[in-house]
Amino acid sequence: MPIKSRIRTIPHYPHEGIMFRDVTTLLKDAVGLRTTIQEIVNRYRTSNIDKVVGIESRGFIIGAPVAYALGVGFVPVRKPGKLPAETMGCDYQLEYGSDRIEIHTDAIRKGERILLVDDLIATGGTMEAAVKLIQEMGGEIIECCFVVDLPEVGGRARLEKQGQKVFALCQFEGS
Amino acid sequence: MPIKSRIRTIPHYPHEGIMFRDVTTLLKDAVGLRTTIQEIVNRYRTSNIDKVVGIESRGFIIGAPVAYALGVGFVPVRKPGKLPAETMGCDYQLEYGSDRIEIHTDAIRKGERILLVDDLIATGGTMEAAVKLIQEMGGEIIECCFVVDLPEVGGRARLEKQGQKVFALCQFEGS
Repeated sequence: MPIKSRIRTIPHYPHEGIMFRDVTTLLKDAVGLRTTIQEIVNRYRTSNIDKVVGIESRGFIIGAPVAYALGVGFVPVRKPGKLPAETMGCDYQLEYGSDRIEIHTDAIRKGERILLVDDLIATGGTMEAAVKLIQEMGGEIIECCFVVDLPEVGGRARLEKQGQKVFALCQFEGS
Repeated sequence: MPIKSRIRTIPHYPHEGIMFRDVTTLLKDAVGLRTTIQEIVNRYRTSNIDKVVGIESRGFIIGAPVAYALGVGFVPVRKPGKLPAETMGCDYQLEYGSDRIEIHTDAIRKGERILLVDDLIATGGTMEAAVKLIQEMGGEIIECCFVVDLPEVGGRARLEKQGQKVFALCQFEGS
């Protein structure tokens, strides 16, 4: 398990009871970074991806090398107010309150084949919002790709129920 | 100018009088992303870099593919409270007020050869703080690397005065 074994678990972060899965220990390791990116790239090499979309900000660290290695462009999905040109946004619910993500309106053209990338899927709320944004722009989502899946939290099932394909390099039990 | 011509200028963002240089138009383009990363990688291919350090968050989009292509690890420098394990931080002055960046204390080992990466250098305040952090950890900074330099704002001169080497893929006049 060259990937899973390099991910650090930090108990009770950011809240009591949460086992935080920290990918920084995976990414700072030359073999860890190379293996992570190559395993993702190998999966999509023949998928005719047009663009990789990464979610702020750990999704940038995974998504940008994947885009580079696939030979396609990279598009960031960001928190509100961070993108300088015209954006469209999507609000989504958190356990307490709500949040919002945005994308440049000219980032994706209708019919482009999109790979969505983030480091980890928990509830799937952010990725669900990103899926909606890309669908509104006319992009075709090939798959939602993660390094870590926390299946007990239910995000994968939530995305799959909406017809999305989901892939993760490894799973951890618990939340 | 395959790089400079793909960077979009947004007048008066985020403030009146600022010409914002937007690299998202460069990075969403397959040729733009590939050329950007390859030009950086070609410069450091024989520099025996041990790790690439990227600054949140556009520095992640440039730095992570550079690390991958060089075959080394990637380390994020982040805003306060974003890194889950033990950190060390550095405060720095802004025009009004101050800000802070942090890095995991176990991210860099003494003597490692570090390439620092961000998308753009303006005043150089954030990069100066990142330089201090890495020096405190015993890292050897090979160079501070940017896509865009705004020479009139003075960040490059400020870093060079402190003995740092600075490289940028392109320059824009004005601030």
